Amino acid sequence: MSILFTQTTAAAVAKAVGAREIFGDASTVIKNFCGIDEISEGSAVCLEDKKYAELILNSAAAVIITAEKMDTGKVQILVEKPKEAFITLLSFLYPDKPVAYTRAPTAVVGKDCSIAAKVKLDAYAVIGDSAAIGEGSIIGAHSVVGDNVSIGRNTVLFPNVTVYADTVIGDNVIIHAGTVIGADGFGYRLEDGRREKIPQRGNVRIGNNVEIGANVTIDRATLGSTVIGNGVKIDNLVQVAHNCRVGENSVLIAQVGIAGSTTIGKSCILAGQVGISDHCVIGDNVIIGAQAGVMSNTKIPPGKFMWGSPVQEMKEEKLTKIYLRKLGSLVRAVEEKLGVKI
Amino acid sequence: MSILFTQTTAAAVAKAVGAREIFGDASTVIKNFCGIDEISEGSAVCLEDKKYAELILNSAAAVIITAEKMDTGKVQILVEKPKEAFITLLSFLYPDKPVAYTRAPTAVVGKDCSIAAKVKLDAYAVIGDSAAIGEGSIIGAHSVVGDNVSIGRNTVLFPNVTVYADTVIGDNVIIHAGTVIGADGFGYRLEDGRREKIPQRGNVRIGNNVEIGANVTIDRATLGSTVIGNGVKIDNLVQVAHNCRVGENSVLIAQVGIAGSTTIGKSCILAGQVGISDHCVIGDNVIIGAQAGVMSNTKIPPGKFMWGSPVQEMKEEKLTKIYLRKLGSLVRAVEEKLGVKI
Amino acid sequence: MSILFTQTTAAAVAKAVGAREIFGDASTVIKNFCGIDEISEGSAVCLEDKKYAELILNSAAAVIITAEKMDTGKVQILVEKPKEAFITLLSFLYPDKPVAYTRAPTAVVGKDCSIAAKVKLDAYAVIGDSAAIGEGSIIGAHSVVGDNVSIGRNTVLFPNVTVYADTVIGDNVIIHAGTVIGADGFGYRLEDGRREKIPQRGNVRIGNNVEIGANVTIDRATLGSTVIGNGVKIDNLVQVAHNCRVGENSVLIAQVGIAGSTTIGKSCILAGQVGISDHCVIGDNVIIGAQAGVMSNTKIPPGKFMWGSPVQEMKEEKLTKIYLRKLGSLVRAVEEKLGVKI
Repeated sequence: MSILFTQTTAAAVAKAVGAREIFGDASTVIKNFCGIDEISEGSAVCLEDKKYAELILNSAAAVIITAEKMDTGKVQILVEKPKEAFITLLSFLYPDKPVAYTRAPTAVVGKDCSIAAKVKLDAYAVIGDSAAIGEGSIIGAHSVVGDNVSIGRNTVLFPNVTVYADTVIGDNVIIHAGTVIGADGFGYRLEDGRREKIPQRGNVRIGNNVEIGANVTIDRATLGSTVIGNGVKIDNLVQVAHNCRVGENSVLIAQVGIAGSTTIGKSCILAGQVGISDHCVIGDNVIIGAQAGVMSNTKIPPGKFMWGSPVQEMKEEKLTKIYLRKLGSLVRAVEEKLGVKI
Repeated sequence: MSILFTQTTAAAVAKAVGAREIFGDASTVIKNFCGIDEISEGSAVCLEDKKYAELILNSAAAVIITAEKMDTGKVQILVEKPKEAFITLLSFLYPDKPVAYTRAPTAVVGKDCSIAAKVKLDAYAVIGDSAAIGEGSIIGAHSVVGDNVSIGRNTVLFPNVTVYADTVIGDNVIIHAGTVIGADGFGYRLEDGRREKIPQRGNVRIGNNVEIGANVTIDRATLGSTVIGNGVKIDNLVQVAHNCRVGENSVLIAQVGIAGSTTIGKSCILAGQVGISDHCVIGDNVIIGAQAGVMSNTKIPPGKFMWGSPVQEMKEEKLTKIYLRKLGSLVRAVEEKLGVKI
Repeated sequence: MSILFTQTTAAAVAKAVGAREIFGDASTVIKNFCGIDEISEGSAVCLEDKKYAELILNSAAAVIITAEKMDTGKVQILVEKPKEAFITLLSFLYPDKPVAYTRAPTAVVGKDCSIAAKVKLDAYAVIGDSAAIGEGSIIGAHSVVGDNVSIGRNTVLFPNVTVYADTVIGDNVIIHAGTVIGADGFGYRLEDGRREKIPQRGNVRIGNNVEIGANVTIDRATLGSTVIGNGVKIDNLVQVAHNCRVGENSVLIAQVGIAGSTTIGKSCILAGQVGISDHCVIGDNVIIGAQAGVMSNTKIPPGKFMWGSPVQEMKEEKLTKIYLRKLGSLVRAVEEKLGVKI
């Protein structure tokens, strides 16, 4: 999946982004497409924020994709939304390399598997018994797909992914390298000071259009399923414990940890390093600020914006943090005015 | 290791859990065993908390494992402790699939190894030179066992585990996928603004009956050993630095990080995302609440229950957090009554 | 890479550390070299801190490396800096095992690669198309090097590392097991409540003399490069998001997370579990204390020592934390003296 740059002209770019107008020589060749930090001779660049206008005008850029016409001799491609044009050009100028759906001779496939014709198995991929993999899916080098796993269509496992037995993965899912799906939940019974393992007999079910970052861990349920809903996006190094449910289109940013049996609603955003304890119920459309902590059994109603550890409403937490910075003057005022020593 | 359900009868279940009585048709077939969220026709379900009684009684469940007889036509299996019956039934109804102790032809074994007869080496397992693996152990697909590693009996490495050279692992240990044991400790010497690596020449020693989650990292000692005691349970994404010692039966919950040369006593519990700095000494039976932080060189006496960052006793930290929420009214009271502006 | 102990004499050790004097029998055989916790008959041990003098004098140690002569019959090797002698002896007494630069027959190499003659490819290493690997480098078992990746000289990838396509890695770099370099940055565009993936078309560039711990994740840039400067040291389980730049010789301690487009200056130290949000600019020589949090778009001038969440200057944060512990007495004083209920 290496990245190829397609050299092209300003005219082709204007067409690709549905530009409303183009100023200057439309046949200008675009030598590369880059951010404002890396402009070189012949670059095309998007002006998304006016504060960078001067930087771009004074640069070696040949072509500017922008919302408003500027006073410059450079080629200008006028669009409604430069940010969207930027995203379009990422794919247009750096298209995906076509995939050859072949099975490496070193890929190992177990018994009674149902693997669609158009599936790519990379070198040393290991597929267990009774697994199913749908059309258009790719299993990366050294990835391991356990017994009885079901993977949908157009799903990509990058290298060194481990999917434990019985996991169910939907369509159009992307799982990045090093991620582990379906390891045992962390459950023990205390007996004479020692912990006896509680068997973890459930599985993990992942919906469609999910993306899971690198070195993530999502544990199988004790019984039943740990569920990742359709459209969920999970960043790197996130932990989702057994029997959690993450609702559709929710976003878990890097290093979030969610403890056992917690339910996250739909379209929630948990910012980086947030920790949510066990048996919480987080409503739909909840946003939780970075590094916040949610204690066991907490219920958060839909639509709330929370922060702090333990969390309170964002507005309150911001005040708390402001007051916290004033603690010194508060102590001094009380000591002086009241003649006490705190 | 996929999960098989063993269809059986209420009578067999009652026997398995040592029920004191059974009401209703003991020959009733149990079609599945599940939590209260997933009851379907013919389910057996444990009533562990009375608040779910009505939900279960009104469900399609065929069999209820419960502590007290209820007024219902469903089959009831009466036990002392439904929670323990639940755990027993996880294994009884979903037994471990028998393991075939075979060596995959693609497994690579180095020179001078001592591998017991009944050891399973999965596809592409790589064993270094002079390694020893005891009876009943399993090395998962793509797992790498370094030179001179010693692994005891009945120990399981899931796929994609990396065990660096010289590591010693005991009996009945479980290591989940993606975990890395024995990487170099993070040690440098500052020299003219650059950091020179301090050689890391020790190892990691892991006791018996330890379970280590997925994508955990436990670093080798600079000299001597990083030690994980018998019965320790480590959740996913935990970091244990060089020269740490974790005492017997302690529990490290997900995303805990422990810095170099820190000693954790026996039977401690470190909750999720706790960070412990270097050279701390944590006594036996200490519990540290989620997201807490322990500063360098801190000593915590045995039996303490700590929280906060930096930690103080749980009781105090709870008060601190309560007062913190009152800061606004405190500031307002002082401003009003004392005529000052904080 | 297992560790071998080279049995030798006190005289040889004295020479290796450039000792200024040796007392006692220089021909004494050193049976092992260890920390103060593991002294046995014939051990050599460094006395780095006087408080351990008595412990060592009363131990079975045969040889002491120390700064000042003591009153003992043991062999004493006098040096200026025992800590540096300790580091020297780690390599002298436990030398690196010589590496055989061979290519395992099971290593898979793609088309159009440029792999130097003296490169070690371990079992099942997978190298993509058009990759380049310089003289003296080692690719560990099961590591995957993507298409078009460039790896310099004397660089070591431990097992189970994944390097995505287009990554550039310098000379003398060490990457520990399970680490993932170049996975897609976490970028989506919200559209009708669903998140559409923003293509991630940049790469990761890693300088020379970098060490990266186990299970780290460093994401590729959306466009351009995520950059890890020369001499940077990264501990285990760290997350570096897309388009970040980490300046030369900076240190990221375990479980640090850095969000997208943040720039870290040169020679910074981010302590364990620090979280830095997106688009921050951290100046050179900044130190950030453990578990601290830096909010989006924060700029920190060079040389600052910061702590807290959100960060403030260390001095202020320490005061805040001290006052926080006094909140109870503050509330009580105000309630008593002012007759109010907080």
